Amino acid sequence: MPRAVDAACGRRRSDTMALVIVDQALYAGGTRRPCGDLSDELAALRSSGAPGDFLWIGLKDPTLAEFDEVNDELGLHPLAVEDAIKGRQRAKVELYDTSVFVVLKPLRYVEESSDIETGELMCFVGDRFIVTVRRGEASPLTGLRHRLEADPEALRRGPMGVLHAIVDLVVDGYRVIDEEVGTDLEDIETRVFSDDGIDSSTIYRLKREVLEFRRAAAPLAAPLHALHATDHPHVTDHELRLLFRDVSDHLQSVIEHVESYDRLLTDVLGAHLAQVTVQQNSDMRRISAWVAIAAVPTMVAGIYGMNFEFMPELVASVDVGGREVHYGYFAVVTLMAVACLGLFRAFKRSGWL
Amino acid sequence: MPRAVDAACGRRRSDTMALVIVDQALYAGGTRRPCGDLSDELAALRSSGAPGDFLWIGLKDPTLAEFDEVNDELGLHPLAVEDAIKGRQRAKVELYDTSVFVVLKPLRYVEESSDIETGELMCFVGDRFIVTVRRGEASPLTGLRHRLEADPEALRRGPMGVLHAIVDLVVDGYRVIDEEVGTDLEDIETRVFSDDGIDSSTIYRLKREVLEFRRAAAPLAAPLHALHATDHPHVTDHELRLLFRDVSDHLQSVIEHVESYDRLLTDVLGAHLAQVTVQQNSDMRRISAWVAIAAVPTMVAGIYGMNFEFMPELVASVDVGGREVHYGYFAVVTLMAVACLGLFRAFKRSGWL
Amino acid sequence: MPRAVDAACGRRRSDTMALVIVDQALYAGGTRRPCGDLSDELAALRSSGAPGDFLWIGLKDPTLAEFDEVNDELGLHPLAVEDAIKGRQRAKVELYDTSVFVVLKPLRYVEESSDIETGELMCFVGDRFIVTVRRGEASPLTGLRHRLEADPEALRRGPMGVLHAIVDLVVDGYRVIDEEVGTDLEDIETRVFSDDGIDSSTIYRLKREVLEFRRAAAPLAAPLHALHATDHPHVTDHELRLLFRDVSDHLQSVIEHVESYDRLLTDVLGAHLAQVTVQQNSDMRRISAWVAIAAVPTMVAGIYGMNFEFMPELVASVDVGGREVHYGYFAVVTLMAVACLGLFRAFKRSGWL
Amino acid sequence: MPRAVDAACGRRRSDTMALVIVDQALYAGGTRRPCGDLSDELAALRSSGAPGDFLWIGLKDPTLAEFDEVNDELGLHPLAVEDAIKGRQRAKVELYDTSVFVVLKPLRYVEESSDIETGELMCFVGDRFIVTVRRGEASPLTGLRHRLEADPEALRRGPMGVLHAIVDLVVDGYRVIDEEVGTDLEDIETRVFSDDGIDSSTIYRLKREVLEFRRAAAPLAAPLHALHATDHPHVTDHELRLLFRDVSDHLQSVIEHVESYDRLLTDVLGAHLAQVTVQQNSDMRRISAWVAIAAVPTMVAGIYGMNFEFMPELVASVDVGGREVHYGYFAVVTLMAVACLGLFRAFKRSGWL
Amino acid sequence: MPRAVDAACGRRRSDTMALVIVDQALYAGGTRRPCGDLSDELAALRSSGAPGDFLWIGLKDPTLAEFDEVNDELGLHPLAVEDAIKGRQRAKVELYDTSVFVVLKPLRYVEESSDIETGELMCFVGDRFIVTVRRGEASPLTGLRHRLEADPEALRRGPMGVLHAIVDLVVDGYRVIDEEVGTDLEDIETRVFSDDGIDSSTIYRLKREVLEFRRAAAPLAAPLHALHATDHPHVTDHELRLLFRDVSDHLQSVIEHVESYDRLLTDVLGAHLAQVTVQQNSDMRRISAWVAIAAVPTMVAGIYGMNFEFMPELVASVDVGGREVHYGYFAVVTLMAVACLGLFRAFKRSGWL
Ligand SMILES: [Mg+2]
Ligand SMILES: [Mg+2]
Ligand SMILES: [Mg+2]
Ligand SMILES: [Mg+2]
Ligand SMILES: [Mg+2]
Ligand SMILES: [Mg+2]
Ligand SMILES: [Mg+2]
Ligand SMILES: [Mg+2]
Ligand SMILES: [Mg+2]
Ligand SMILES: [Mg+2]
Ligand SMILES: [Mg+2]
Ligand SMILES: [Mg+2]
Ligand SMILES: [Mg+2]
Ligand SMILES: [Mg+2]
Ligand SMILES: [Mg+2]
Ligand SMILES: [Mg+2]
Ligand SMILES: [Mg+2]
Ligand SMILES: [Mg+2]
Ligand SMILES: [Mg+2]
Ligand SMILES: [Mg+2]
Ligand SMILES: [Mg+2]
Ligand SMILES: [Mg+2]
Ligand SMILES: [Mg+2]
Ligand SMILES: [Mg+2]
Ligand SMILES: [Mg+2]
Ligand SMILES: [Mg+2]
Ligand SMILES: [Mg+2]
Ligand SMILES: [Mg+2]
Ligand SMILES: [Mg+2]
Ligand SMILES: [Mg+2]
Ligand SMILES: [Mg+2]
Repeated sequence: MPRAVDAACGRRRSDTMALVIVDQALYAGGTRRPCGDLSDELAALRSSGAPGDFLWIGLKDPTLAEFDEVNDELGLHPLAVEDAIKGRQRAKVELYDTSVFVVLKPLRYVEESSDIETGELMCFVGDRFIVTVRRGEASPLTGLRHRLEADPEALRRGPMGVLHAIVDLVVDGYRVIDEEVGTDLEDIETRVFSDDGIDSSTIYRLKREVLEFRRAAAPLAAPLHALHATDHPHVTDHELRLLFRDVSDHLQSVIEHVESYDRLLTDVLGAHLAQVTVQQNSDMRRISAWVAIAAVPTMVAGIYGMNFEFMPELVASVDVGGREVHYGYFAVVTLMAVACLGLFRAFKRSGWL
Repeated sequence: MPRAVDAACGRRRSDTMALVIVDQALYAGGTRRPCGDLSDELAALRSSGAPGDFLWIGLKDPTLAEFDEVNDELGLHPLAVEDAIKGRQRAKVELYDTSVFVVLKPLRYVEESSDIETGELMCFVGDRFIVTVRRGEASPLTGLRHRLEADPEALRRGPMGVLHAIVDLVVDGYRVIDEEVGTDLEDIETRVFSDDGIDSSTIYRLKREVLEFRRAAAPLAAPLHALHATDHPHVTDHELRLLFRDVSDHLQSVIEHVESYDRLLTDVLGAHLAQVTVQQNSDMRRISAWVAIAAVPTMVAGIYGMNFEFMPELVASVDVGGREVHYGYFAVVTLMAVACLGLFRAFKRSGWL
Repeated sequence: MPRAVDAACGRRRSDTMALVIVDQALYAGGTRRPCGDLSDELAALRSSGAPGDFLWIGLKDPTLAEFDEVNDELGLHPLAVEDAIKGRQRAKVELYDTSVFVVLKPLRYVEESSDIETGELMCFVGDRFIVTVRRGEASPLTGLRHRLEADPEALRRGPMGVLHAIVDLVVDGYRVIDEEVGTDLEDIETRVFSDDGIDSSTIYRLKREVLEFRRAAAPLAAPLHALHATDHPHVTDHELRLLFRDVSDHLQSVIEHVESYDRLLTDVLGAHLAQVTVQQNSDMRRISAWVAIAAVPTMVAGIYGMNFEFMPELVASVDVGGREVHYGYFAVVTLMAVACLGLFRAFKRSGWL
Repeated sequence: MPRAVDAACGRRRSDTMALVIVDQALYAGGTRRPCGDLSDELAALRSSGAPGDFLWIGLKDPTLAEFDEVNDELGLHPLAVEDAIKGRQRAKVELYDTSVFVVLKPLRYVEESSDIETGELMCFVGDRFIVTVRRGEASPLTGLRHRLEADPEALRRGPMGVLHAIVDLVVDGYRVIDEEVGTDLEDIETRVFSDDGIDSSTIYRLKREVLEFRRAAAPLAAPLHALHATDHPHVTDHELRLLFRDVSDHLQSVIEHVESYDRLLTDVLGAHLAQVTVQQNSDMRRISAWVAIAAVPTMVAGIYGMNFEFMPELVASVDVGGREVHYGYFAVVTLMAVACLGLFRAFKRSGWL
Repeated sequence: MPRAVDAACGRRRSDTMALVIVDQALYAGGTRRPCGDLSDELAALRSSGAPGDFLWIGLKDPTLAEFDEVNDELGLHPLAVEDAIKGRQRAKVELYDTSVFVVLKPLRYVEESSDIETGELMCFVGDRFIVTVRRGEASPLTGLRHRLEADPEALRRGPMGVLHAIVDLVVDGYRVIDEEVGTDLEDIETRVFSDDGIDSSTIYRLKREVLEFRRAAAPLAAPLHALHATDHPHVTDHELRLLFRDVSDHLQSVIEHVESYDRLLTDVLGAHLAQVTVQQNSDMRRISAWVAIAAVPTMVAGIYGMNFEFMPELVASVDVGGREVHYGYFAVVTLMAVACLGLFRAFKRSGWL
């Protein structure tokens, strides 16, 4: 939700700008100051500002026309501006002559659907300003400005310090999702190997989210590493380099986990699908075993249902106390029962029933 | 469809050349001028042309003989010319002493068959000229010349600026297809996991197209990166380097997506094939369960169809109001029905029916 | 279990510190000395200590506040301190201006569950001190200090020599687990290919442990290599470089084995799942073969159970010594037995029974 | 088939040499000259030959002794000679002090069996000579010498120019096979996805050939790239570098295709095997469905074959024009027919029949 | 089997040393000389030996104490010595200040079980000595010393020349096994695709051996390449560099083959497992088809076994020459036979029988 533009920020603007500019302020000596006309403030900062004093302008979903009102005074490169307007860029750190353009892909985890949503966050970092552009709903900057305003030392690191804080926020977000995905994977593993009902689409969907995760995180690794590893022209402060190395390290850890998840999910998907087949085969075996048991009395009954003239078993009898008892039927039924029971036990022993 | 050769373009030519040369013109100060004899114009440009003035010659499917008419005056390298005539080259950027030879593989997406078609587009970029050679039907240059002629600033960047515009066009085409393929994949995923009828050949064919996509896009990544990353001898203009970096970045994004698609398609193909087996096994289990149910009354009936002399159930009767009622048959049929119903319920509970 | 703080270690401390500081001592000329106030000792070491004299402070699960008491006097970098407090870092070697920060992931193998547990061990190595921070239960440092105190030559290598001893300990632990996992894998292989009962979850779980193993070991390879391969600013002693190369080599060997295990486990999981299906199919074939055998007498009996007016076999008889013998029934039962036996033999020959 | 040794080639030789030396000649100014004693000719070339004049000696399956006769005068390195005699080398480009040794693996495609056969071709390239050694039957050099003799400009490029022509020939051969394999793969794909009868061994065998293809082509990529990319000591001519780059580019294209084929074949093999299982399961379902249909009348008939004293359906009758008509049998048979037809339709609707 | 220690080798030694030292000698000018006290001989060699003169000491399974007797005089690095004593190292080439330590993993192929056994062979190469340490039974050095003693030129290359001969021997051993494994793979392929009986464990075991093969061969590739590719401090002789390049090339060829085997084995294992399933499914289909055939007469017989009052077929008769012939039974049996035959033919046509 865009907060109203800083009232102290002098210049008259079209009404839509009030919606686009989420916040803007001047930070001098680590303290927030109201900011007047952008070009005047910039000129003043450049001529007489203390090191680390800068402007921070926060935009949200600007159109080209809206962005131009800001850009007229900052002189950003049109290619970077085009990326910021169009969106759907990959994560990157691009150096221009007088500024650095950074695209971040903050992630959001939707608990109910285990879905990862990719947002977009762009930063233009100049000598005396930082412009942050948020696209879409995921808004990881909420609260960050407030937290930084309570930490003058961080603000005194200037625009690159703010950039660090933002990248740190995004990467911390990755770490949270890393754990969520880890939990989801463990949950899936438990269910797959406990024959608990799980749908193969659940597994596949997590795999898809993991790839989305990777696409957000992996491209950032190399440029973030470059920010601290070499004599980067825009990160001259030694402390800042260590800070970027710290974030870079966390990012690396996340990427390694994501790679593991990807491998494991392929295996667990295969295992699940095989498991289902195994279960079904096991059911089939059980059904067939029962049919086989039933086939025995059916066969025997068929034999004694034949109409031959002379079948001695049919008329077999014993003399019990003078009464002729035809025991054939009882003998055969007993035989059937014994045969069935024997089969049942054998199948039970084989684990087929 | 080749437009007629620029009327102002003096030299007499064989009739076939009119079909081969799609368009040619001289651009001075960002404005189109008619072009006379090629070698005269080139000599004039080289001696007294302003920086950024150049010739642009557009050819289509030239034969070696036809190309020679143009080449006599431009002095291109025979190896590059051979590639342009023969076609079927891989995407590349080749440096020659006085020119750069670029092969691009524009892609076209055929909606109805979800097929990707690979075209071919070659560019010879010299100090004062660019020759573009189209092969096959896919014609991504239609409209580009017109659009550039309306943008004098772009034209003033000279032949390398035109090359950038062309590469940008091709890579923008990749991005469109990237989204199409993404949609196709999502569609396949939905159908695979909803047991909607899908053919495994559909999945495999998309995988094939993805590999074709990769073959077109991936080889361009390294040379395109070289065009902006290092002190490339042919890209001395700083702005142009930034422009090539921009295209390079978009290409990288496309390649990353294509890699994801490839991985996901392997998984989804495996999942689909397993799914089909699972469905069939499930059908078999259902059929077998019904057969098992039918086996029970068959067995019982067999028993009471035996011809033993004395089978008490057959003649069992009760006295109902003085009438002897033989209830055996009814009892057994009831028993059968109860057994079948019991089995049916048990199978239903197990999810087998 | 934290041993009590070295009694000789002068300064008064809060009671909790006694639990956090496992041990601390000064090592001069390879011999243990009691250590007084940290900053005094350090200053003395820096001004007049012999090369290789240093302080060794051992902590366990310190909180930020607790760590600060130590850190106030050592001047460690806040980012490294934050990692040591928070834990859950990846294995790494980070250079700071005046110290090296090392994160190690010692592993512990739980025999009964074949589970690998990952611990965490951090080291801050300065010019004249080493701080070791243990997290969690796995405590590979137990005994190491004692062993080193018995080896003055090793102690004379200074803090970096202690670091080597620790890394060596951790990597030796990896080698032990490497063998355990190798044994587990061989055990699984034997059981899979001998149709001995094995659960697919057992295989999958080992695969998971192998990935955990890799995550602990692999990230250490590059920085450990850097410690000996190049002119590393913190490893100036030639002997020490050879020592680190030795550990690095063992680590490499472990990583290669782990890669092999991973590949083999994927194959063995696939083979196992296929094996199970094959076994089940084999059972089904056996059951079906028996049902097929039973179907023959059932069919024949059905035929002779028909009620046609004239069925010659039913009344066929021979005259045996004047007595009319109806042999039909016996002939048919014999026929049935012969047919069943024939089928049984045929199925036996095909390996179906 | 070895042509007779150039008659003008003076020195007396053993008879076997006539079989081993396929052809030898001196090329001066791009024209073929007869060649006398090897060492005399070489010495003359080295002292007074124009640039680009050289000897070309063609051998076939030489033994060490035979080769020594040639080598005595050329001073080749024993290690290279050993490789040429022993054969079964991998494709490579090896630099020696005064010569380059190149091993090529020409491929031959056997249409009837879709088999790829790997040959072997070695070249020793010196300052003033090239020795080509053919092993085995595949003889890609047939015709090449003739074609080159008709192209003096190519011959004037000297021994390295001949090497280029040979490598070009071999790589052009790869391109032909690339297309053949592509066609075979498409054929396999069509048959797999049209349920046309295809054997899994056909797919596997193509995969094997593809790996053989890769083994021939891939190792050549890096050294061929080195021949043109860097300041290679043996390729000082700029034109020649461009020529080698051209071949290198074609080789790269072939390798990329081969990689695609490999990936696709793995997928298509998996898909085929799954397809077969699916087809078999489908047959089983059909058979079982028919058995299930037959089970219904069997069950009903069994019931009415029971011998109960009183079964009203058996004696049910209506009075039709005074005649008592027992309709029971007809009713039941009709019922059976209706039940079977109903099942048949239901199974048909489910796609089981 | 250790040969007795060279009698001429002066110094008194403990009896166990006679078992540990397989052989030792001094080689001067390519000729074997008896060797006296090690340190005396070394000092003499260093002060006045001709280039290429050296000591060669061969050990077998030495303990640390035993090795120390030798090492006291050679001054090897303790870390290398530790590796040589402990064994179970990975293949490597380690540079120390005054010597090179090489670990090789010779392989032995056990024909009967198709098993590959990994041995271990260590070499310490100094300026004037080479120490070879054999571990385990596989003894690839048997005969090598003899062969070298017959080749003075090779011996004159000094200790590094002996190292080359040893590495060459080991890699030649790899090539032999490469072919054995290739043959085993072809055998497996033939059996898998000819439905010849093959056990999946056979395939898996070969895969395991291939991985063992790779672990032995692959780690050697990079250091062996370094030995010849760069200005290696220990290989200053140009000829020697070419010799190492030759071995390196053969090793590379082996590694490429091993990679192919690995890929193919994965595919062939999958294909085999699928093949078995397909065969079993085919058996099931055959059995079910026979059961389906038997179900038809069973059903028909059931119908005519019903006890309805009026079933016209049962009493159907024709008047044949005045005699009433009840043909019903014969008609029905004929009908049954015809139906079974029809089914049999249909199933035969579908390939189900
Ligand atoms: Mg994108
Ligand atoms: Mg998502
Ligand atoms: Mg963070
Ligand atoms: Mg969750
Ligand atoms: Mg950190
Ligand atoms: Mg499966
Ligand atoms: Mg091509
Ligand atoms: Mg296509
Ligand atoms: Mg674009
Ligand atoms: Mg579509
Ligand atoms: Mg394709
Ligand atoms: Mg862009
Ligand atoms: Mg972690
Ligand atoms: Mg664990
Ligand atoms: Mg160790
Ligand atoms: Mg164990
Ligand atoms: Mg485990
Ligand atoms: Mg070691
Ligand atoms: Mg497998
Ligand atoms: Mg299966
Ligand atoms: Mg070979
Ligand atoms: Mg072949
Ligand atoms: Mg060619
Ligand atoms: Mg063919
Ligand atoms: Mg070409
Ligand atoms: Mg399958
Ligand atoms: Mg080992
Ligand atoms: Mg083995
Ligand atoms: Mg060899
Ligand atoms: Mg064998
Ligand atoms: Mg060789």
